[in-house]
Amino acid sequence: MTKLSKDQSLIAENCAAISHIDTAIQDKVRKQQAKLTKPEGSLGRLEDLAVHIAGIRQKRDPTLINNLVVVVAADHGIAQQGISAYPPVVTKQMMENFINQGGAINVLGKSIGARLVLIDAGINNGNFEDSPVVSLSIGQGTDDFTHGPAMTRKNAEKAVAAGITFFNNELQNNQIDIVACGEMGIGNTTSAAAITAAITGKKPQIVTGRGTGIDDFTYKKKISAIEQALKINIFDPEDAISLLSALGGYEIAVMAGIYIGAARNRVPIIIDGVISSVAALIAVILEPKISEYLISSHLSPEPAHQIILDRMNLIPLLDLELRLGEATGAALGLSLCISACKLLNEMATFTDAQVAGKIT
Amino acid sequence: MTKLSKDQSLIAENCAAISHIDTAIQDKVRKQQAKLTKPEGSLGRLEDLAVHIAGIRQKRDPTLINNLVVVVAADHGIAQQGISAYPPVVTKQMMENFINQGGAINVLGKSIGARLVLIDAGINNGNFEDSPVVSLSIGQGTDDFTHGPAMTRKNAEKAVAAGITFFNNELQNNQIDIVACGEMGIGNTTSAAAITAAITGKKPQIVTGRGTGIDDFTYKKKISAIEQALKINIFDPEDAISLLSALGGYEIAVMAGIYIGAARNRVPIIIDGVISSVAALIAVILEPKISEYLISSHLSPEPAHQIILDRMNLIPLLDLELRLGEATGAALGLSLCISACKLLNEMATFTDAQVAGKIT
Repeated sequence: MTKLSKDQSLIAENCAAISHIDTAIQDKVRKQQAKLTKPEGSLGRLEDLAVHIAGIRQKRDPTLINNLVVVVAADHGIAQQGISAYPPVVTKQMMENFINQGGAINVLGKSIGARLVLIDAGINNGNFEDSPVVSLSIGQGTDDFTHGPAMTRKNAEKAVAAGITFFNNELQNNQIDIVACGEMGIGNTTSAAAITAAITGKKPQIVTGRGTGIDDFTYKKKISAIEQALKINIFDPEDAISLLSALGGYEIAVMAGIYIGAARNRVPIIIDGVISSVAALIAVILEPKISEYLISSHLSPEPAHQIILDRMNLIPLLDLELRLGEATGAALGLSLCISACKLLNEMATFTDAQVAGKIT
Repeated sequence: MTKLSKDQSLIAENCAAISHIDTAIQDKVRKQQAKLTKPEGSLGRLEDLAVHIAGIRQKRDPTLINNLVVVVAADHGIAQQGISAYPPVVTKQMMENFINQGGAINVLGKSIGARLVLIDAGINNGNFEDSPVVSLSIGQGTDDFTHGPAMTRKNAEKAVAAGITFFNNELQNNQIDIVACGEMGIGNTTSAAAITAAITGKKPQIVTGRGTGIDDFTYKKKISAIEQALKINIFDPEDAISLLSALGGYEIAVMAGIYIGAARNRVPIIIDGVISSVAALIAVILEPKISEYLISSHLSPEPAHQIILDRMNLIPLLDLELRLGEATGAALGLSLCISACKLLNEMATFTDAQVAGKIT
């Protein structure tokens, strides 16, 4: 038997430490919800959400006060081929925009009172030393996966392990009631579509979307690139590290690690669009119990998204045609989670409010 | 020509004072949105929402700070026939619950920082003198519409006029950037389904739902009551007052009045579930331009809801299986409206943030 590397051990240990969520608590919460002044089930998916979060947190009255939003950014070698509507330099420029509070996620994060953490997982010329950006940079973007693997297996493991360690460290310094994850990375819908095709066996033209808004010519080039990547690379749909290595992005690998860290610590995970959802599926391949910790915030128009969510039996909360990433949809989903928990905790009961119950 | 009554004049004058929304401002907002640091259209329906609100408010940078949530409550004669899962006394008891901050809408309203106003439009034994409830009470609930009209035409007009006057008065004392409307009234899904059938010609079994959660026996009774009401009452689908008189509820009539008042003052209107949406359609029959001022917050499982929204070409923002009423869905929709406006006003532009634009 081969000795595991440090990163491999860290991943294996954290995955092994993940428990099922607490269904006994969930039954208690359902009983409490039946006592609140509303017809049973009339708050629909908000009731399910509160039950879900209670089961994860192992608390009958979960509160979402210390809410973390993470944006993980990285560059992609494939972007050099011009498969995106924007040049690769935009990844770095948008991180600077986030630092200066100018991005959509800054506005939404502030609006819901969440703490925003920015992570450099591998941005070209990333140099954020005098900024609040957390550097987990694995490399200067990935390699172009039409010529060979996007990253080495070692770097894929290093990135996942870095995500786990990041989350565990964060939790030592701050309380985290829930985490919402999103990303920034020019070219990363190409990587997400390629991984989706690799996992599901679906054809590239089925799983590939227009990303940030590409024209027909670029769209065909994007599909060809994915076809080429699937042809020349070696991967096994059941080996998550092989998928990351062949077709991944560093931000996808780091997000998968954050999800492992969150599930290991019983923190609910709100996923964003197609890329953060692919990262979630990577984490679920590594440890299936992680699916119990996932909340899908929204459905994006990227065709791979529905496919990936179906694979994990997740039903998105919102369908607002959002396709920005940056955890923007996840932040809106977080706002619904906050409301769901407040309703559970703050509504009066029929008895307290002296309201007549259902006619039997 | 017959001389109009005071209420008829008030309704006619306020309807006549309603303008189209401002499409020139909307074009300017679209241009501004294209400059913000995100791919064009990538914030999906949130971008459309901001444009919509800007067109109503006639402002390029609309802000939603003074946000009003109104819950209008009334009783229904038909409820005496036991077509609901709850006894009629619950209407009054729930108003008391709202006064004591125990209802779902209290929790959600507080969470988004909205001001909540409660209106008694005709609650049985309504007696809220030492409370913040606004009394517009037209009567002790409506009459049972299986025996004759729910209310007189005069009372229908009085209720609509009271809603208009309420809104105009509110606006003299407070700034109102947006209004979200919902209701409370045991038996009112029966009234809403009956009005839907009357307007659309659809059969009662198509438009009738389970309301607060009734069993098969009660459901059949509910459908029979609606069939009977449609048979014995006289109404004209193009005469909104006749619909209210024959099949209405006082809360539905008052909400229709509030919508007229809001549109007349260029205040965006967020509608809630099936009952507040039926009230919106009543208002739109009175003055079609009101449809331009409506934002549909969510889709409820009540079958009449989709039918009513389709009739007004409204696409709901949320589909969370909410069926509580009380403006709970509208409050969640309001939260999305707030986010949409903040994104428009607070995001950086490509130029300011020095982010490279789209590759041409």
